[in-house]
Amino acid sequence: MARLVPVADPADPRLADYTRLRDVNLRKSLEAEHGLFIAEGEKVIRRALATGHPARSFLMADRWVEPLADALDAADAPVYVAADAVVEAVAGFPVHRGALASLRRLPLPDVASVVAEARRLLVLEDLVDHANVGAIFRCAAALGVDAVVLSRRCADPLYRRAVKVSMGAVFAVPYARMAHRRDGLDTLRKAGFTLLALTPDASAVPLTAAPSGERVALLLGSEGDGLTSHWLAEADAPVRIPMDAGALASGVDSLNVVAAAAIACYALVSGT
Amino acid sequence: MARLVPVADPADPRLADYTRLRDVNLRKSLEAEHGLFIAEGEKVIRRALATGHPARSFLMADRWVEPLADALDAADAPVYVAADAVVEAVAGFPVHRGALASLRRLPLPDVASVVAEARRLLVLEDLVDHANVGAIFRCAAALGVDAVVLSRRCADPLYRRAVKVSMGAVFAVPYARMAHRRDGLDTLRKAGFTLLALTPDASAVPLTAAPSGERVALLLGSEGDGLTSHWLAEADAPVRIPMDAGALASGVDSLNVVAAAAIACYALVSGT
Repeated sequence: MARLVPVADPADPRLADYTRLRDVNLRKSLEAEHGLFIAEGEKVIRRALATGHPARSFLMADRWVEPLADALDAADAPVYVAADAVVEAVAGFPVHRGALASLRRLPLPDVASVVAEARRLLVLEDLVDHANVGAIFRCAAALGVDAVVLSRRCADPLYRRAVKVSMGAVFAVPYARMAHRRDGLDTLRKAGFTLLALTPDASAVPLTAAPSGERVALLLGSEGDGLTSHWLAEADAPVRIPMDAGALASGVDSLNVVAAAAIACYALVSGT
Repeated sequence: MARLVPVADPADPRLADYTRLRDVNLRKSLEAEHGLFIAEGEKVIRRALATGHPARSFLMADRWVEPLADALDAADAPVYVAADAVVEAVAGFPVHRGALASLRRLPLPDVASVVAEARRLLVLEDLVDHANVGAIFRCAAALGVDAVVLSRRCADPLYRRAVKVSMGAVFAVPYARMAHRRDGLDTLRKAGFTLLALTPDASAVPLTAAPSGERVALLLGSEGDGLTSHWLAEADAPVRIPMDAGALASGVDSLNVVAAAAIACYALVSGT
């Protein structure tokens, strides 16, 4: 049975895992130190548990206990039950979807093992926005990209907002993080991947004419500036999404990174 | 020369156009009543002016005057110059990109004239999120969709946040709003458009095998539930983005509406 524990004081130390969920700097150090992450909402919590992430605890208003009862019963962790105002005081914002879970991070596999069975990869260089990372995982999962490889500084897919925007896809797509660009990309090359660099550059090859192969990795750059020159130089070919000539003339010269990633995943998977 | 007018009082009635920019209900009635909309940031303001929208006024901290000097000189409207704190007090939030403009809306063309010269159309049913509408316009512009048709209740592309997220693409892509679904879709059919309804339904035709034609209109539904049954029933064919079987099994069964729209625009334009 679920261990329900009523809590009335936002300063209760047992709720420390849920402190100020929108404070990115605080969360980074707190989550790293304790090896935890936060899942929000019934659907996402269920996916996190189903993919083997052990719960440390749960925090929710009592109306969320019943819909989650079977999952709470199965988890060996306390369920802190508190009024909405208490949850808001701890989390620092009104938690609309109600239920929160603090879960244990699992050790990340290394790049070589994540890509061992993959044919279609995304490689993300230094994306800073958690919502974008989450949305890209959602695209990758839905369209059938086999794995994602992150640069050293790319935003954390298990940050609450990334998890939420991904609708839990961060648990469905295996991923690894490179320690160094050169070693990481070398690992991909040695595994036989063709590295394609997505760029708005008009001289790049259109996606529809991109070199294909048994194993293809698509490199995607950050929100503002796209891939850096170091990354572009390491790729086997630059590729682009064909843009409308009229749009270019009127100054609409790019897609946002999620739209670009969605199209690239679609082309990557359906083109082969 | 620009008419610079220093303003120190957030309650100054000359700043009424800029009141509480995040208050959706207030803005809807205020903008409709006065036939205005707000553009934010140098790039977007320049595009709004360049596409023939007359300025009613501008509001900015003085550091933004110089970068916009030529545009302000050319516009016949007062430039209210105020401290950041005053702008924030009026707008209701810190305006990071600094410059704001209040511009006059132009009369919207009717559906028949907007689609007269178009070959590739997007038709949006009842999207409620302004950021999504803006992002979809950006995709449409970048990829070369010729025009957008909105359902009667679809969110306003000239709402500040839609304009901003679109990066000004709402000025680049012609659009019209239907008064009624049936009449609107009839107009498209009479103009020779094949109507394709985008749906996650697994029994729909994959996009890559969709019926093409001289003129194709792609119907896109709202964020939560997709197209309603009325709209699906009016289409010539339902089409879907092929999803990964494994993803479906693990519950990642859909893309967000912007990712879906990006892929659909890409397929719509590149497939023909």
